[in-house]
Amino acid sequence: MKDFIHQNKVYYSPVEFAMAHIGGVWKIPIIVSLRTQALRYGELKDRIAHISDKMLITQLRELEEKGMISRTIYREKPPRVDYQLSEKGMQALPVIDLLANYGQTLMQTADIKYK
Amino acid sequence: MKDFIHQNKVYYSPVEFAMAHIGGVWKIPIIVSLRTQALRYGELKDRIAHISDKMLITQLRELEEKGMISRTIYREKPPRVDYQLSEKGMQALPVIDLLANYGQTLMQTADIKYK
Repeated sequence: MKDFIHQNKVYYSPVEFAMAHIGGVWKIPIIVSLRTQALRYGELKDRIAHISDKMLITQLRELEEKGMISRTIYREKPPRVDYQLSEKGMQALPVIDLLANYGQTLMQTADIKYK
Repeated sequence: MKDFIHQNKVYYSPVEFAMAHIGGVWKIPIIVSLRTQALRYGELKDRIAHISDKMLITQLRELEEKGMISRTIYREKPPRVDYQLSEKGMQALPVIDLLANYGQTLMQTADIKYK
C-alpha cells in the first residue's frame, strides 16, 4: 500500500480517503437525510437524533468543504438556507447502503434487536 | 434513527456498528492482507506499510474479539501462529472493495496521482 498526501493530510489507502468523506458517527446520517430532498438546518436537526448544534454545524461545514453537500441561500425575509447533496455526495449512497446492510447482518449475528 | 447498546457501547445506527468492525486506519489493511491466505505475524507486519508493533498487536486482538479473524497455533518448535479471516471477516470483503472503489473515484476527482 502506498501513502499519499492531500490537503496536508497523509492517507494510507483509497479506503481511508473514502472514510475521510463519509466516516465518523455523523456524516452518514446527514448524507442519508438529504438523499431524497434538500433540507433546512432545523429540519436536518430534527431528523438526526442526538446530534448537537455544535456537531451539526461542524459536520455541515466539513461536508461542504469536501464537496459532498452544497448550500443554497434564498433571498427571502428572513433568508432561507437549504442543504442538498452534490453529485459527489450522491455517489456515496450505494456505499452507505452496502455498509448499512453489512451492519444489519452483523447485528443479526450478534442477536441485537433493532427496528 | 434508533440507538442501541452492545457490549457496553452505544451505537446510533447499523452503519456505525459496521464501522466498529472495519473502521479506523488499520483494520481494513489487515483484513485485505488475509483475503487469500493465512499469515503469520511477521508476514502481516511486512505487508502493512507504516504499522507499528503496538498497533498491529492491538488491532489483531480487536479483530479477534469481534470474531473477524481467528488464530491457529501449530504445536511446532518454536510454536507457529497463523492469522486467518473468519466467515464473518470474509463478509466484510465486498464492503471493503466498494469502499476502495469509491475512494479511488474520489481520488480521481481530486486529481490525486496514485499507483
